[in-house]
Amino acid sequence: MTTTEDTPTPMRTDGPDLRHHGDAEVRDDGSALTDLAVNVRSDTPPAWLREVIAGSLDGLAAYPDGRAARAAVAARHGLPVERVLLTAGAAEAFVLLARALKVRRPVVVHPQFTEPEAALRDAGHSVGRVLLREEDGFRLDPAAVPEDADLVVVGNPTNPTSVLHPADTVAALARAGRTLVVDEAFMDAVPGEREALAGRTDVPGLVVLRSLTKTWGLAGLRIGYVLAAPETVAELEQAQPLWPVSTPALVAAEACVSPRALAEAAHAAYRIAADRAHLVAGLGEFAGAGLRVVSPAEGPFVLVRLPGAAAVRHRLRELGFAVRRGDTFPGLGEEWLRIAVRDRGTADRLLEALGRVVPAGG
Amino acid sequence: MTTTEDTPTPMRTDGPDLRHHGDAEVRDDGSALTDLAVNVRSDTPPAWLREVIAGSLDGLAAYPDGRAARAAVAARHGLPVERVLLTAGAAEAFVLLARALKVRRPVVVHPQFTEPEAALRDAGHSVGRVLLREEDGFRLDPAAVPEDADLVVVGNPTNPTSVLHPADTVAALARAGRTLVVDEAFMDAVPGEREALAGRTDVPGLVVLRSLTKTWGLAGLRIGYVLAAPETVAELEQAQPLWPVSTPALVAAEACVSPRALAEAAHAAYRIAADRAHLVAGLGEFAGAGLRVVSPAEGPFVLVRLPGAAAVRHRLRELGFAVRRGDTFPGLGEEWLRIAVRDRGTADRLLEALGRVVPAGG
Repeated sequence: MTTTEDTPTPMRTDGPDLRHHGDAEVRDDGSALTDLAVNVRSDTPPAWLREVIAGSLDGLAAYPDGRAARAAVAARHGLPVERVLLTAGAAEAFVLLARALKVRRPVVVHPQFTEPEAALRDAGHSVGRVLLREEDGFRLDPAAVPEDADLVVVGNPTNPTSVLHPADTVAALARAGRTLVVDEAFMDAVPGEREALAGRTDVPGLVVLRSLTKTWGLAGLRIGYVLAAPETVAELEQAQPLWPVSTPALVAAEACVSPRALAEAAHAAYRIAADRAHLVAGLGEFAGAGLRVVSPAEGPFVLVRLPGAAAVRHRLRELGFAVRRGDTFPGLGEEWLRIAVRDRGTADRLLEALGRVVPAGG
Repeated sequence: MTTTEDTPTPMRTDGPDLRHHGDAEVRDDGSALTDLAVNVRSDTPPAWLREVIAGSLDGLAAYPDGRAARAAVAARHGLPVERVLLTAGAAEAFVLLARALKVRRPVVVHPQFTEPEAALRDAGHSVGRVLLREEDGFRLDPAAVPEDADLVVVGNPTNPTSVLHPADTVAALARAGRTLVVDEAFMDAVPGEREALAGRTDVPGLVVLRSLTKTWGLAGLRIGYVLAAPETVAELEQAQPLWPVSTPALVAAEACVSPRALAEAAHAAYRIAADRAHLVAGLGEFAGAGLRVVSPAEGPFVLVRLPGAAAVRHRLRELGFAVRRGDTFPGLGEEWLRIAVRDRGTADRLLEALGRVVPAGG
């Protein structure tokens, strides 16, 4: 069972701080911390990608020309270029969706990345919320989404729950007259990208968002893309500034959809799955202390619930580890933490520190 | 005397193509042409700046943190940081102004860079135009701006006329309840930046836009900034995507307002003035063919009127030179061309080519 609530707008100061993100947990005094708060793959960008980007710096005096990158992204998903829009990160896509489309009744499925709702509110919308529940494993129930919602935003796999919804369940949210926004920012961390809707043209109103930030370590470069019907792409494009994506970001996008990069990302997805299994197993040792991991986790992070999470997070910080607070996500509370999947050595060190804070066993 | 007209919205297909820019003149088959169409300083970015930007690539996995760049820009203009907003180029600033501010009666002073009007129209506004006239030397007459205009956009020095309006004349456009947007994208090419309003806090409703693109050859990087009252900055910031400016662009912005960079830009401004004088003198040789240069030109480009300009432009292209068509600027027509100021050797080659197309003497 899920619940729906309407939120007034603007509501920046009430409720969770929708503009809190993992990067705030490792800023300033956090630079010496082991970062398990930000969902960017470690050891990225790889050297070959840095070289490609560095090579673009000689051409900076020219205005950006996005045609090659757009064509490459289209080819990667087997789509015509008219269905692709390059954006300055997924964050720009959220703003474009909120401001350019004619929307009367937007609904966001929570808990999820908060930026889509923040962008909708900033654009003056009242935003409805569907709250998925822990008891249901945070699984998506299409029936919980109000029939009259004409914009629905859902993440898959979902940040922060790490739940991967079946593609058919997500597609079942499509309706005539409804824009269905599926944030697949973490889909390339799922082996085989099973449950992806990117590339599908048979789902009416479908808008898929993709990021190159997390898998490729390009958070600083601002690059992502939208896949949608040509009319929707045209509407969003008209609301974009001229030259919206920088030349280094365009060059990176083209490189990140090359066969070599896709093979590397696919390999990384399997490694992440193995590393996540290791982390989840280790966290299982704390079941006796009331720690629960939302399962099955399918993204490059896990969501955990444990009593006294806020105090645990502060103690972990003192011990050198930054994890992401969960209470800024609608539908979660102070008992929640999000932990990024890192290599086994890092996970083991985190688990050891956790053992000093929380009594293990059980 | 100036004239005012209202334009319907949207009007993409009627009238001049507001989305035509100089970069289109050197794309594709234009890559072999000598570029006098795009207003970016040649031989830029300089090697030291490329190195600074390249150095930022190691930090790309982190989300951008704009605080240091913002503080540096504020210090450069003697302003508190609350008066500074970094943007993904001036183009983003135009979109933010068009979409975030409560505006009922926007007016753009033409001929000028067309992107502000295009952004206003795309945001659904009806845009009034004040057309400055050739007979008046394209000088600004504050009385020509309708009293009820609550957003006025003017460029200084103006692209494409190269006219530098007195700061007092521009400031005289300020009114209670009016936002006065002054695009100073080319002001740092004016020796001593005389007539700049950047840094002024005594002009009500003043919004100054600055670009780092033209002087520093960073068109591909997307970086610029807005100087305005703290409330206005806050409004614009709220409409920005999260992490709007990339890390390489932030690093570049900080470097471009350093004392070393300011000294280099100041030196370049004097060189540009000398090069422009050389170009204008050479163009004077074609007075007998009816060629007129708008004077005094104070920007890094000159606007010329000559009979058969379109044919001349095509012939120059065949001879290897790209100049900017003028007919896409409201208030100008097919007889107008804009020519970027380059070094004397380039200017001499252009003038020689022009001599093969247009009968000189007079």
